Amino acid sequence: MESIAVNSKKRNELVDISLKVKEVVKKSGVKEGVCILFCAHTTAALTINENADPSVQKDIINYLNRLVPADEGYLHAEGNSDSHIKSSLLGADLQIIIEKEKLALGTWQGIYFCEFDGPRSRKVYVKIINQC
Amino acid sequence: MESIAVNSKKRNELVDISLKVKEVVKKSGVKEGVCILFCAHTTAALTINENADPSVQKDIINYLNRLVPADEGYLHAEGNSDSHIKSSLLGADLQIIIEKEKLALGTWQGIYFCEFDGPRSRKVYVKIINQC
Amino acid sequence: MESIAVNSKKRNELVDISLKVKEVVKKSGVKEGVCILFCAHTTAALTINENADPSVQKDIINYLNRLVPADEGYLHAEGNSDSHIKSSLLGADLQIIIEKEKLALGTWQGIYFCEFDGPRSRKVYVKIINQC
Repeated sequence: MESIAVNSKKRNELVDISLKVKEVVKKSGVKEGVCILFCAHTTAALTINENADPSVQKDIINYLNRLVPADEGYLHAEGNSDSHIKSSLLGADLQIIIEKEKLALGTWQGIYFCEFDGPRSRKVYVKIINQC
Repeated sequence: MESIAVNSKKRNELVDISLKVKEVVKKSGVKEGVCILFCAHTTAALTINENADPSVQKDIINYLNRLVPADEGYLHAEGNSDSHIKSSLLGADLQIIIEKEKLALGTWQGIYFCEFDGPRSRKVYVKIINQC
Repeated sequence: MESIAVNSKKRNELVDISLKVKEVVKKSGVKEGVCILFCAHTTAALTINENADPSVQKDIINYLNRLVPADEGYLHAEGNSDSHIKSSLLGADLQIIIEKEKLALGTWQGIYFCEFDGPRSRKVYVKIINQC
């Protein structure tokens, strides 16, 4: 298992980790298999979305902030229940097929770490499954 | 890796791909393992839900259209920010266990391609992991 | 493939299944690999979230009940369209990396079965992939 370090700068932010994941895949030397990603935090998530226009990332963050308001009379006293809810809505795990030594992503797909309670230092675990 | 072609007919639509996935599993000859599915698009997704009453599929689509309105003053200029947001909410990847040469699905579970910016020609990647 | 039994007590409830999953991993004897979990029902889901303060689980359930009201003029006549929608929002499948014979979870992460149409007897399938 490898671990990717992510340093977020805002409370809510999508951080593109595509290059870091591709480096782990390349280093593994695996030709055919699956790359499994896991966010080891309960106020963050992982998602795949457009890698071209950064406005898409902002639209996703702005929308989630409206959908899950930060102050809604939650029971949890740490002031980050919205972060926990967003984490479950988007999900902690991802998997991408490896084909011919590369991630089989669509043309416009990038891999994003979703920070919902930053800024913080975070970790994403990576496991490569070899399956020729 | 195999690829399943999906042709959607509406802007928002759930397309049942269960039979196509089952064909790939059968063709692989794998008895015990995992079937990994990946939607190679950023305005679509994959989900598992009821395969009996088609009203459930309509309720899901109608609900998502209310939850993520098409015109909300988004920044992304292509008019499909709602499609990108729905894609991240439902997710691009799925995995189903293979047991005795068959997908270990519950009685009422079907596999759906979720089109959020159709009609279009789309692709779902399939990778079978063999694990006796 | 193993199967974990879950007995929910309420219509909407998060049930901590972390210990049961850890038992399956231990029993498998696998040192390095992946643990794949699959909820075999269309009105339930799986998620990972905080294992310390039970208020987080209540906040998630309360929020989802507001987000997806039980009575919204749905087409499906069984009165549980909200349960089906919540199922697709959170998702039926999960995967957790196995490292040194243990699940590679973050400090605060627990594994939850999400009941959205209980009380019921439910099943979660578990498949261990061995990958040294």
